[in-house]
Amino acid sequence: MAVHGIHHVGIAVEDVDAAVALYRELFGAELEQRERLEDQGVEAASLRVGDSHVELLRPLGEETPVGKFLASRGPGMHHVAFRVDDVAAELRRLAGDGVELIDETPRRGAFGTIVAFVHPRATGGVLAELVYEP
Amino acid sequence: MAVHGIHHVGIAVEDVDAAVALYRELFGAELEQRERLEDQGVEAASLRVGDSHVELLRPLGEETPVGKFLASRGPGMHHVAFRVDDVAAELRRLAGDGVELIDETPRRGAFGTIVAFVHPRATGGVLAELVYEP
Repeated sequence: MAVHGIHHVGIAVEDVDAAVALYRELFGAELEQRERLEDQGVEAASLRVGDSHVELLRPLGEETPVGKFLASRGPGMHHVAFRVDDVAAELRRLAGDGVELIDETPRRGAFGTIVAFVHPRATGGVLAELVYEP
Repeated sequence: MAVHGIHHVGIAVEDVDAAVALYRELFGAELEQRERLEDQGVEAASLRVGDSHVELLRPLGEETPVGKFLASRGPGMHHVAFRVDDVAAELRRLAGDGVELIDETPRRGAFGTIVAFVHPRATGGVLAELVYEP
């Protein structure tokens, strides 16, 4: 199987501290890690939910991808990330099948991961991330 | 911990057969179960992704919740479902905290599950489902 689990669901938020507190209160989800990713234009917080995670994303500016998402759709689910063993190999397979990709090559994700995004136009409207967690 | 894993991500689709074929091709996700839920106004298909699932939802009519979602937002991520041991107990806890619920009591979900939905107004824009899978 190409993907072997849901690694996380990414959620666009306006305030990371408030969202961390809300997800703890609502679902008992505990903060694991927090990181500012300048190149992706987000502040990210990872909450543990069993073997998966909820990733809270606050845009660092209005012109970032998550900033544009928040402006047009408001806070809410932004992407779903699937675990893979080899992001580069999956990208080659998908590209070979003519699948529209956002990332042609793997790049650094949050919290030490290697990631790539598949375009929502290729997936029926779902921004899908492939994640390798070392 | 109140929730202990991501059970599935629910995705609104216009054509279940096409979406099943697409998710198999893109991600190697295999069809597990398929069910028509008249009371919820959806045809649902469950695809296995590791220990989690992708749930594809086609509305049975324009006036159903998923039909209205498709009309306003188009195909894409619809909800995220968290595993719990006792849906009724979680609902009592959330209601006691004043959290806005869609379902005040547990109801039958797809594929033999017991479920309840928490309102997106309570979660920062995320339609969240609590799922108990016997």
